[in-house]
Amino acid sequence: MQATMLYGPRDIRFEDRPEPEIYQPTDAILRLSATCICGSDLWPYRGIGNFSEPPTPMGHEYCGIVEEIGSAVKNIKRGQFVVGSFATSDNTCVICRDGYQSSCVQREFMSTAQAPLLRVPLADGTLVSTREVPPKELIPSLLATSDVLGTGWFAADAANVKPGRTVVVVGDGAVGLLAVLSAKQMGAERIIAMSRHESRQKLAREFGATDVVTERGDEGIARIKDLTKGTGADSVLECVGTQESMMQAIRSARPGGFVSYVGVPHGVVLDGAELFFAHVHLHGGPAPVRRYLPHLIDLVLKEKINPGKVFDLTLPLDQVAEGYRAMDERRAIKTLLQP
Amino acid sequence: MQATMLYGPRDIRFEDRPEPEIYQPTDAILRLSATCICGSDLWPYRGIGNFSEPPTPMGHEYCGIVEEIGSAVKNIKRGQFVVGSFATSDNTCVICRDGYQSSCVQREFMSTAQAPLLRVPLADGTLVSTREVPPKELIPSLLATSDVLGTGWFAADAANVKPGRTVVVVGDGAVGLLAVLSAKQMGAERIIAMSRHESRQKLAREFGATDVVTERGDEGIARIKDLTKGTGADSVLECVGTQESMMQAIRSARPGGFVSYVGVPHGVVLDGAELFFAHVHLHGGPAPVRRYLPHLIDLVLKEKINPGKVFDLTLPLDQVAEGYRAMDERRAIKTLLQP
Repeated sequence: MQATMLYGPRDIRFEDRPEPEIYQPTDAILRLSATCICGSDLWPYRGIGNFSEPPTPMGHEYCGIVEEIGSAVKNIKRGQFVVGSFATSDNTCVICRDGYQSSCVQREFMSTAQAPLLRVPLADGTLVSTREVPPKELIPSLLATSDVLGTGWFAADAANVKPGRTVVVVGDGAVGLLAVLSAKQMGAERIIAMSRHESRQKLAREFGATDVVTERGDEGIARIKDLTKGTGADSVLECVGTQESMMQAIRSARPGGFVSYVGVPHGVVLDGAELFFAHVHLHGGPAPVRRYLPHLIDLVLKEKINPGKVFDLTLPLDQVAEGYRAMDERRAIKTLLQP
Repeated sequence: MQATMLYGPRDIRFEDRPEPEIYQPTDAILRLSATCICGSDLWPYRGIGNFSEPPTPMGHEYCGIVEEIGSAVKNIKRGQFVVGSFATSDNTCVICRDGYQSSCVQREFMSTAQAPLLRVPLADGTLVSTREVPPKELIPSLLATSDVLGTGWFAADAANVKPGRTVVVVGDGAVGLLAVLSAKQMGAERIIAMSRHESRQKLAREFGATDVVTERGDEGIARIKDLTKGTGADSVLECVGTQESMMQAIRSARPGGFVSYVGVPHGVVLDGAELFFAHVHLHGGPAPVRRYLPHLIDLVLKEKINPGKVFDLTLPLDQVAEGYRAMDERRAIKTLLQP
């Protein structure tokens, strides 16, 4: 088969790779219905961060049909349509049982999903199947549950979004936009999206944003204070992972409020004393998507949400390099790839 | 009257000061039954941190009899016994109503309580009165509710301590010891106190600690992992405020667990990426003691708890300088001062 490899900064190649095989009896092999490019893929694409020796296989968002299962797989059957998380989980350890499957004691991060075939370890604990093979038009939204929606949902949940609350979303990437959708689903009364890009503002409003703030830094914080009777927001969802966005988030929350962060922080350093006097709750990390998958898949199948709208570019998988370029240059919010 | 002033590192003087007067119609003047020295007073005493020009008045823990009230004070009456928080609060603003009175929009930090008489701003919102003047032997425990117990209680509450949970307390100062007591009251099943001092270990066990860990750093973390089936604790209460204690706390919690921090951080810097992958909840700040005061006073009056045991040295107020010395040299856990 051919699959996606990163050779160095902005050097994506779609090339011959061995087909995946069952290594462990708990593995499954999927034939992917769709895969996509994550905002977090842009960090290594841009040469930022510490990554393993190139070339590196890419991709961790996926859904598809089970092609093969290992001898120990019990819940997942050949021919089923499944969605899985970007982090594998046994779904039975004490961490999983508490809902933190993305820190499962057996966790592995998926990394070979921009390909037609994918090996998924711990298939029983990682994958969620649907009763029937879903109609084609729902594939983008089902694919979104695998990471980008699950991560936006975690952002809202970790920031304690509840009916009636005022919520700020920092970041208008696909995760930020779906954090808006998630906050709306959780009943937030006011959802303030921080965004400077018209097309993204539009989608944010469509997903439930009631206000848009274009200012950043101190001006952005002042605008949030204006909009929240001077106190700051109940919940602030940080969906970027930079120092600037993190401080924007912490300083936009009211004392006693909740700040979540769901993008891997790059170069973020927090001053203990400032955090102390900010008096906020802080929670984040790799989104435990597996916890939310059954509910999110259900919302999609019942067509109550349409998170697939974040895919504003669809390409055949063999044009993956163009998909990266489009996102890198912010011509696309998120690229769906069709194997 | 004579009151306590800090002139510079380790230079405490008890000297003539003007008696406090009603400045605002919302003020009250108390004649203190007792006051004390806080672990946090040792930071400026040791010359650490940025403080105002010396000499600085000292003290923020207090209880006593209402001597005078301003014309706008409605709930507090002359002659009543009252306890107040180290932070003033109107107890009516949106922040207060949410239980974060120590970040009240009108907050002031108390700082003149190591004295016989004390002006308390926002008396109605800051002070809690008892039905009767309590017996003398309960004064130390009632005084403790003013800060050190309220802060330990917040540490346990902010770290989500609940029945059946495993709790680690980092720090064996008075706050840490009362965090143990608080965790016990909240039903924690296992309470691991990190302490190297025999007398403090003894008090920790008396307050409810089930285990004592003497190791620190990586060894301390390894011990906690050993005691928690390899995963880390559900709740970790950081009661010191140093980089070492903060990292000890974060690394001792399990993914999805809760870390609280209640001592003003001094030189603490958190790495965003480490915090992200630790996957913990983090919450702390100045303890909203006012939220807890009615309940804590009730527990003391019913003699269900005896937090006053942390006072292992009692001195006449005019010997306040010796009280600081004893705590600085760790000869005393906490010094009660009798005006």
